[in-house]
Amino acid sequence: MPAFKLTIAYDGTGLVGWQRQARGRSVQGLLEDAVRALDGRHATVTGAGRTDAGVHALGQTASVSLARAIDAPSVRRALNARLPAAVRVLAAEEVLASFNAQFHARSKLYRYRIWNAAVQNPFEQLYSWHIAAPSLDVTAMAQAAVHVEGRHDFAAFQGTGSSTATTERVVLSCTVRRRGPLVICEVRGEGFLRHMVRNIVGTLVEVGRGRRSPAWIADVVASRRREQAGRTAPATGLFLVSVDYGAPADALAAER
Amino acid sequence: MPAFKLTIAYDGTGLVGWQRQARGRSVQGLLEDAVRALDGRHATVTGAGRTDAGVHALGQTASVSLARAIDAPSVRRALNARLPAAVRVLAAEEVLASFNAQFHARSKLYRYRIWNAAVQNPFEQLYSWHIAAPSLDVTAMAQAAVHVEGRHDFAAFQGTGSSTATTERVVLSCTVRRRGPLVICEVRGEGFLRHMVRNIVGTLVEVGRGRRSPAWIADVVASRRREQAGRTAPATGLFLVSVDYGAPADALAAER
Repeated sequence: MPAFKLTIAYDGTGLVGWQRQARGRSVQGLLEDAVRALDGRHATVTGAGRTDAGVHALGQTASVSLARAIDAPSVRRALNARLPAAVRVLAAEEVLASFNAQFHARSKLYRYRIWNAAVQNPFEQLYSWHIAAPSLDVTAMAQAAVHVEGRHDFAAFQGTGSSTATTERVVLSCTVRRRGPLVICEVRGEGFLRHMVRNIVGTLVEVGRGRRSPAWIADVVASRRREQAGRTAPATGLFLVSVDYGAPADALAAER
Repeated sequence: MPAFKLTIAYDGTGLVGWQRQARGRSVQGLLEDAVRALDGRHATVTGAGRTDAGVHALGQTASVSLARAIDAPSVRRALNARLPAAVRVLAAEEVLASFNAQFHARSKLYRYRIWNAAVQNPFEQLYSWHIAAPSLDVTAMAQAAVHVEGRHDFAAFQGTGSSTATTERVVLSCTVRRRGPLVICEVRGEGFLRHMVRNIVGTLVEVGRGRRSPAWIADVVASRRREQAGRTAPATGLFLVSVDYGAPADALAAER
């Protein structure tokens, strides 16, 4: 039973998200269908993170074990031949059977893109949040972002209707920068609550619009109340950029 | 009757091209419908260049005269409110009534994007030509590109079924560069024949694949025969980047 780590890019437009659902096209469902066609039986494809409907990925990772003896380049080719063009397996690597893309992930990097110009760019419509005016104060947003770094109870940034054992998470870094009309927020963390990145971005935008001071974010975190934070930024602007395993996935699987 | 120069960006996916057709959504048709809603009467919107179905624009330009007294920022806002999100008026400037976006254009810059990697990028699918392998020889392509610069009879690069008075055109520059997996060809010219840029790119790719030498392009030009050149590169990779008027459009309109 060879096991593989897959690196996957997808355009989340029109997809119901990573996780297989009763209806709609999910990334997991599309991958599992492609695996079944290749391997002749069902195998669960475990993703590092569950991206929501409309969220994109540049480097999502997943693990899967196959019954058939097959090499990694053939797995990549065969899955891509069966997947829609919006979902691409960028790489397949053989790993130890114990490797689990979700549990062995050390951190994930998310990027959020805001198109901050009077007129929306037609090529950014599905890949950003359009904020026409005013020009966001990126310096203030970057100052505010520092307050979410570290180990905190992120209950204020958790999507409603979630149930998790704990709302404590570790954010390794949170940055905001401008590149022309694009404002880019990047959040690297060990784990995330549902909608956490989008809620952090919605809150940073309140600061960027000048409605709140950078220090206000610390109060929002401390409040642990969702209604204190800003709105949930739209899914279109969010990209799962990469998942870090700290070491080659096979070595890591052997260690743990 | 105020006249305006419009700068327009559009995602050509699903559009029949610039020119109004009997059926299908065209950029000109969408703009003329928006102008009619704003101005209460039909006015022709004249584009600098007629882009084909599926071709994109970052900075197409057009001219239009309105009956209603209205300022430029309001024209931009009103047209964008009536256009689909795939077509955006980036700027509107008031110009002299004699300004004609097509006849006064001095040069146009087209960019062609090739995604040259084993796996297609899902975000590039509609905005590039995917050439999986081998890695294109960009140095050879750049050497070949020099042979299309200058005043030539470009009959070998004219789409079939075209009828123009002359097939002589001036290409001011033709460059090829690599940026990671992207190969970018840029062609600036005073005027273009139908499919000319896409046929030049298709021919440069023959050189990039190592099937032909860079000097072969000079023979293709000299042959004046379409069947000597390479295939027509797909529309998806082509962008009209900008149109140059050499001077502010109003000054220019006054001069000519």
